[in-house]
Amino acid sequence: MFGRKPSPQPKPGGSSQAPTFVAAGTQIHGDLKAKGPVRVDGVILGSLLIDGDLEIAPGGRIEGDEVRARNILVNGEVRAKIIADGKLTLTKRARVEGDVVAKALDIEAGATFVGRSVTGDGKQLPPTVT
Amino acid sequence: MFGRKPSPQPKPGGSSQAPTFVAAGTQIHGDLKAKGPVRVDGVILGSLLIDGDLEIAPGGRIEGDEVRARNILVNGEVRAKIIADGKLTLTKRARVEGDVVAKALDIEAGATFVGRSVTGDGKQLPPTVT
Repeated sequence: MFGRKPSPQPKPGGSSQAPTFVAAGTQIHGDLKAKGPVRVDGVILGSLLIDGDLEIAPGGRIEGDEVRARNILVNGEVRAKIIADGKLTLTKRARVEGDVVAKALDIEAGATFVGRSVTGDGKQLPPTVT
Repeated sequence: MFGRKPSPQPKPGGSSQAPTFVAAGTQIHGDLKAKGPVRVDGVILGSLLIDGDLEIAPGGRIEGDEVRARNILVNGEVRAKIIADGKLTLTKRARVEGDVVAKALDIEAGATFVGRSVTGDGKQLPPTVT
């Protein structure tokens, strides 16, 4: 991959903004902010703030305070408060633990989701409902 | 990019290991560990531990304690201790600040490199030589 010339960026699908891939095996222990789409195959132990879509691939894992993106597709594991300004989709392999705020929330059967959720336009998070 | 189907992984050059792209606009505030190559176009405020090559693209920036990879190509900015088990290359747009340990070190003209360097087999960083 390496030479003086930077490796060719992976072309995102239709987005001009380059997607961020956190590949499997990659572990980010910290917060990640992104402008474009992010795909996490690895591990992020931290918060994500993505001005774009976020995809947590099946092996991916995010643990942190907050994961915020536009549309969030979780195939992996997320232990964080998730704020999807768009749709938050948890597939059946997803394992999410954390409060989620999403405009739309789609949790597939088999998905593991533990946490409070707020969808719609909820401005503030109401106090925790036990 | 997103759909139920994970986006196709960018194919690394020859590496079977999928590269990690931290795209421009992406900021990781935390440490990143990777198995395969990493390309950072964005910002990582944390340490990198990469079992593979690392490319900091021109806009990329890494600020952290340690950036460790095999061959590191820095086109961007790194403020961290860099440990390249292979070659550390700083192109002319590179702005590196931090101790570097590399087997090989190639700093192009124009590159900004501030830090202590250890190349070769130097295991530990000797005390500062004035």
